[in-house]
Amino acid sequence: MKNTFGNSIALTLFGESHGEMIGAVIDGLAPGLDIDEDFIRAQLDKRRPAGKISTARHEADEFSIVSGAFNGKTTGTPLTILIPNTSQHSKDYAATRSLARPGHADYTAYKKYHGFEDYRGGGHFSGRVTAALVAAGAILIQALVKKGIAIGTHIRSCAGIEDAGFGDLSADIARLNTLGFAVLDTEKGEQMRKAIEAAAAEGDSVGGVLETVVTGLPAGVGEPWFDTVEGVLSHALFSVPAVKGVEFGDAFGMVNGRGSEYNDSFYIFEKEIKTTTNHNGGINGGITNGMPILFRCAVKPTPSIFKEQATVDFIKGENASLSLKGRHDPAIIHRACVVVDSVTALVLADLLAQRYGTDCLASLS
Amino acid sequence: MKNTFGNSIALTLFGESHGEMIGAVIDGLAPGLDIDEDFIRAQLDKRRPAGKISTARHEADEFSIVSGAFNGKTTGTPLTILIPNTSQHSKDYAATRSLARPGHADYTAYKKYHGFEDYRGGGHFSGRVTAALVAAGAILIQALVKKGIAIGTHIRSCAGIEDAGFGDLSADIARLNTLGFAVLDTEKGEQMRKAIEAAAAEGDSVGGVLETVVTGLPAGVGEPWFDTVEGVLSHALFSVPAVKGVEFGDAFGMVNGRGSEYNDSFYIFEKEIKTTTNHNGGINGGITNGMPILFRCAVKPTPSIFKEQATVDFIKGENASLSLKGRHDPAIIHRACVVVDSVTALVLADLLAQRYGTDCLASLS
Amino acid sequence: MKNTFGNSIALTLFGESHGEMIGAVIDGLAPGLDIDEDFIRAQLDKRRPAGKISTARHEADEFSIVSGAFNGKTTGTPLTILIPNTSQHSKDYAATRSLARPGHADYTAYKKYHGFEDYRGGGHFSGRVTAALVAAGAILIQALVKKGIAIGTHIRSCAGIEDAGFGDLSADIARLNTLGFAVLDTEKGEQMRKAIEAAAAEGDSVGGVLETVVTGLPAGVGEPWFDTVEGVLSHALFSVPAVKGVEFGDAFGMVNGRGSEYNDSFYIFEKEIKTTTNHNGGINGGITNGMPILFRCAVKPTPSIFKEQATVDFIKGENASLSLKGRHDPAIIHRACVVVDSVTALVLADLLAQRYGTDCLASLS
Amino acid sequence: MKNTFGNSIALTLFGESHGEMIGAVIDGLAPGLDIDEDFIRAQLDKRRPAGKISTARHEADEFSIVSGAFNGKTTGTPLTILIPNTSQHSKDYAATRSLARPGHADYTAYKKYHGFEDYRGGGHFSGRVTAALVAAGAILIQALVKKGIAIGTHIRSCAGIEDAGFGDLSADIARLNTLGFAVLDTEKGEQMRKAIEAAAAEGDSVGGVLETVVTGLPAGVGEPWFDTVEGVLSHALFSVPAVKGVEFGDAFGMVNGRGSEYNDSFYIFEKEIKTTTNHNGGINGGITNGMPILFRCAVKPTPSIFKEQATVDFIKGENASLSLKGRHDPAIIHRACVVVDSVTALVLADLLAQRYGTDCLASLS
Repeated sequence: MKNTFGNSIALTLFGESHGEMIGAVIDGLAPGLDIDEDFIRAQLDKRRPAGKISTARHEADEFSIVSGAFNGKTTGTPLTILIPNTSQHSKDYAATRSLARPGHADYTAYKKYHGFEDYRGGGHFSGRVTAALVAAGAILIQALVKKGIAIGTHIRSCAGIEDAGFGDLSADIARLNTLGFAVLDTEKGEQMRKAIEAAAAEGDSVGGVLETVVTGLPAGVGEPWFDTVEGVLSHALFSVPAVKGVEFGDAFGMVNGRGSEYNDSFYIFEKEIKTTTNHNGGINGGITNGMPILFRCAVKPTPSIFKEQATVDFIKGENASLSLKGRHDPAIIHRACVVVDSVTALVLADLLAQRYGTDCLASLS
Repeated sequence: MKNTFGNSIALTLFGESHGEMIGAVIDGLAPGLDIDEDFIRAQLDKRRPAGKISTARHEADEFSIVSGAFNGKTTGTPLTILIPNTSQHSKDYAATRSLARPGHADYTAYKKYHGFEDYRGGGHFSGRVTAALVAAGAILIQALVKKGIAIGTHIRSCAGIEDAGFGDLSADIARLNTLGFAVLDTEKGEQMRKAIEAAAAEGDSVGGVLETVVTGLPAGVGEPWFDTVEGVLSHALFSVPAVKGVEFGDAFGMVNGRGSEYNDSFYIFEKEIKTTTNHNGGINGGITNGMPILFRCAVKPTPSIFKEQATVDFIKGENASLSLKGRHDPAIIHRACVVVDSVTALVLADLLAQRYGTDCLASLS
Repeated sequence: MKNTFGNSIALTLFGESHGEMIGAVIDGLAPGLDIDEDFIRAQLDKRRPAGKISTARHEADEFSIVSGAFNGKTTGTPLTILIPNTSQHSKDYAATRSLARPGHADYTAYKKYHGFEDYRGGGHFSGRVTAALVAAGAILIQALVKKGIAIGTHIRSCAGIEDAGFGDLSADIARLNTLGFAVLDTEKGEQMRKAIEAAAAEGDSVGGVLETVVTGLPAGVGEPWFDTVEGVLSHALFSVPAVKGVEFGDAFGMVNGRGSEYNDSFYIFEKEIKTTTNHNGGINGGITNGMPILFRCAVKPTPSIFKEQATVDFIKGENASLSLKGRHDPAIIHRACVVVDSVTALVLADLLAQRYGTDCLASLS
Repeated sequence: MKNTFGNSIALTLFGESHGEMIGAVIDGLAPGLDIDEDFIRAQLDKRRPAGKISTARHEADEFSIVSGAFNGKTTGTPLTILIPNTSQHSKDYAATRSLARPGHADYTAYKKYHGFEDYRGGGHFSGRVTAALVAAGAILIQALVKKGIAIGTHIRSCAGIEDAGFGDLSADIARLNTLGFAVLDTEKGEQMRKAIEAAAAEGDSVGGVLETVVTGLPAGVGEPWFDTVEGVLSHALFSVPAVKGVEFGDAFGMVNGRGSEYNDSFYIFEKEIKTTTNHNGGINGGITNGMPILFRCAVKPTPSIFKEQATVDFIKGENASLSLKGRHDPAIIHRACVVVDSVTALVLADLLAQRYGTDCLASLS
């Protein structure tokens, strides 16, 4: 299904970095969900570059919702969000069209689309497209919150600097969702920013790890084979630019341990079934167990760097060197937080709608 | 789509651990593919428990192909493989039906299926179901090999012991595919086996990391959003029992590095475009770049252990303790190699069929 | 998705006319649905040939349910039904393998599967495969009945003889569901049987029209574009062998009329909204309006006839003539009734599960 | 999947009659297809109302393609077409919001969307949405023509007046595709127009039958079960407003005949396999046989009529009467021709892309 994801609730993404606009259609939304344009704007703001640690390209992200909304609420029919591009510098790209930027999709796009791709600024592969995803996700995030389901993501590590771990989840999520640079330990966040600036000063870039927690999901959501919660979430999360790894619970951290250390024991807490630990990230056998969902995404260092790099001219078929010019992010990890939240909201809303029906997120129910 | 995975080529899994049989239907196979029953048997043998490091349950895995095959070749219509269960000890399970085994799906199955689930031996969640997946995958693995595409998986680490890394991929894959305990360094493999036996002696279990490489895929396969190669592969890989993390290329290993270190430079080698390194695991922007695909799966320590564990009786809603009896694996990582290979073959065959059409794997073309 | 149909509830069909068995996997069933083997058997009996008006091939249709069932109820995991073939006369087919039977799929199968198809008795295209569909459908039909939704099909016309129209729907459906030759007017049914026998005596065959009614569906099910109730039902109904046309409500009967004659006026009846007529077959804008669903399927005359026919040898590429031998149906319309009911139950159960969630058909809810 | 249709090539529709705009995203297009804006405009013109036989609402249909196109060709990424609404008279609708127009979706939309639907002018159910479908279809129609595949639809009957049947298909299709009122016999077309005007004069409406032919499709496309060519085409065709029946070949016309009359005999014509007749509409066993595809759609009389009608107020729950005002079509059958062609192109392009791969329609191949 390519650029469409989801079953009961499905999102379709379109647009190119230097085209007229980018956008998303989201189908299967319950009718009667609130559309809070201020909240959408706030979410877009988190994704928008700001300051020395981001690209100099500034887009207003003035979205418009052109279908599926009526009197400030979703109608239940496909909701379309359009976000015009206004700050393209397309001339930057024509001269280097056939020089494959290492770590980017220029060469793979050429092989897939035979040269017909819009190569300007990464075209359809650009992280710019995630603005539409964030706008659509904002509607779902608010709908989930009304059902008691909250999502929060922090920069677990960046450039080797580790943030604090989660503590009081409810408070942590609430605070993270107000931040433009989402860390639990402000001091560590400052160190991360400085590390990003240092890399930027050298024309280089950094990566890191994002950690996401979801509270309030009922037990019993997901499927045993293929449509496991891990499988469906990871499927979508690998579309977040630069994500190259996804792990649930302790995953890579428990591979050297023993079952007796990492089995999460069940116990009764105030008449509810809980686990004493959460090494499995809230999922057993592909299905939610009522504990918080916890996962981490590995974000590779941003591939756009100013240092000279060896590469090829893939049209001429010869070796070449490349020095990127233009506007680039020395780190995208802080901007990716809200994208991860949005993808997570989409996937979970879809799983819930499959399990409990079309209207399960509606304010009417 | 739950227990069915794939678009142009789709696999449906069915069966329970202690039911009459397990099986798979695979639809969308090109007509004319060879069905080599000896190879299927050999693949099933790799998955079957053996010796002190595995469960004492022994199943003959005598499969039969009851549709979609004619004169030793695929017909192109749905191919169904049935594998009877013969060694069930169902009495083992009735008494402990409502005691949630920590790390297992007993409780989540109960929440999802309201108590109607077949709880014996994990029912539909049992790793036993992967036998059908392996049998189906065997047909695709051989079809891919004929098109020059080879898949190999080794135990990258187990119980803290690290295997050697890949060297000559072609030779390594060929050798791994002959092994029941797939490691590149035989000596390390012996140490792993001993570590598994040591854990077993203590009634405990171990986990590890599987590393997979795929050679021969053309550049240009996959999609920019959602149906990225990473996304589709991970979606299916999280169905391999005990897999909790999936990373491509260096992923979690490069999060602390810089773009200048981890961008894979392109160069021309014998008129072909290659990269000097492969930190991205053969995928840029979600699309194959012609380099080997490389990924790793984190396998948690097997949850079935003999040590006494705290848990709950989820029907009575009270705390309880549990000492597993019966037959269990102190490690499944060695048995999971061929499951990962099979899942990988399924996903890649499907991506190729979507890209190049129904017949692209057929021997006729 | 080929041989799999459905979203929340999906059916996969497999098997060939002269293979070892045919079968179906049905995934997404609510847990806790009754499995009434006697009812399944009764439904299969309606499909099974009987007497002079059907083929002489007699299959016991001794099905077994090998997964997804436990203690007489569905578990919620994929339910697999196997039905062995026992009465194959495969020798009948080898000699005429490359002679395309007019009206059949021999030639199209050859073009699609390049000669690897199992050509015996129509292979995977055989109406035999519908036995598995009927067995799976039986479970859904009973689940729907428990929710107040009833399906009935009669032979509206056969060989030019018209049955009576529906009267008291509840009584008519109840009676039709007990009949092997489903007509509302017994006398007309006798005339139809005689017409079939007359055609059989001449080595020829007949067709007809099936008319189906569904009562008890709530208003508000279906989608405005693409997944209209008409669209999804027709998609599946065209898989019933020999069906070449599907119409809802009066369709082809109202094309020459005027809006003022065929708009169904709404009115209040005992506090419920009804329509005075039902020319739209219970569907407005693709969505159920609470009135009975009504549709008709055009069943072409059975293509298997004993009269000599002109055709081609598609391997030699030359003209040929063909006189069918073996066992063939002079009419399949009476056997198709229960197949149409089963397809209808599958589609409606899926639409309901998408709308109201996984458990909506469960006896627990 | 609701408002998205297709597998390898998928179309998503969005928009409401009185919203800001309507549009479509089409994903999976081969890269390098020509985008001929004049042709798109010409197709939209055929759908646009004109003269006394159509609604007085006039929309310019000034579309813009905002993604997926570059240098006049498709890029292979999602192509988005936007068509602003400019001629809404939304005040017409508010007063009668809860009066269900007979034959329309007002009541069913209310039941599905709980009152949150945009009820103005039919909202998302409006035929206006098909403008986006026609614009998207235009690209596919031209791509198919380059591969030798042509589609033509004529008004087979309208208000009881029968058009001539197809003769020389190639010439007939070419001519039909130039007409705004597509009939083969101009004289009959004039009679139809007069009948429409006569109905309009009485505040009433008419329906009819559309007949479509497709030439140039290779044999071997389609699937035996569920994704039959008939099934997939009908699924989409029932989204064309007012279509209530779909038949292939002679369907309802051969139900009273015999197999010996309606089996299409094969023969060799200039080394190609053909059939002497085409009662099966070019499809055997769900798969194309190389003969022209032929199908007919039953179009009910347009439900919007000016005559006073009995109905209900579905919010108050009481009987009411309704006299439509505003702008309405006394017939839509002539406007539906190009919609049917567009739907047909979408379905066939998708089936071909599944069979032969992503690039099969590309001008490069």
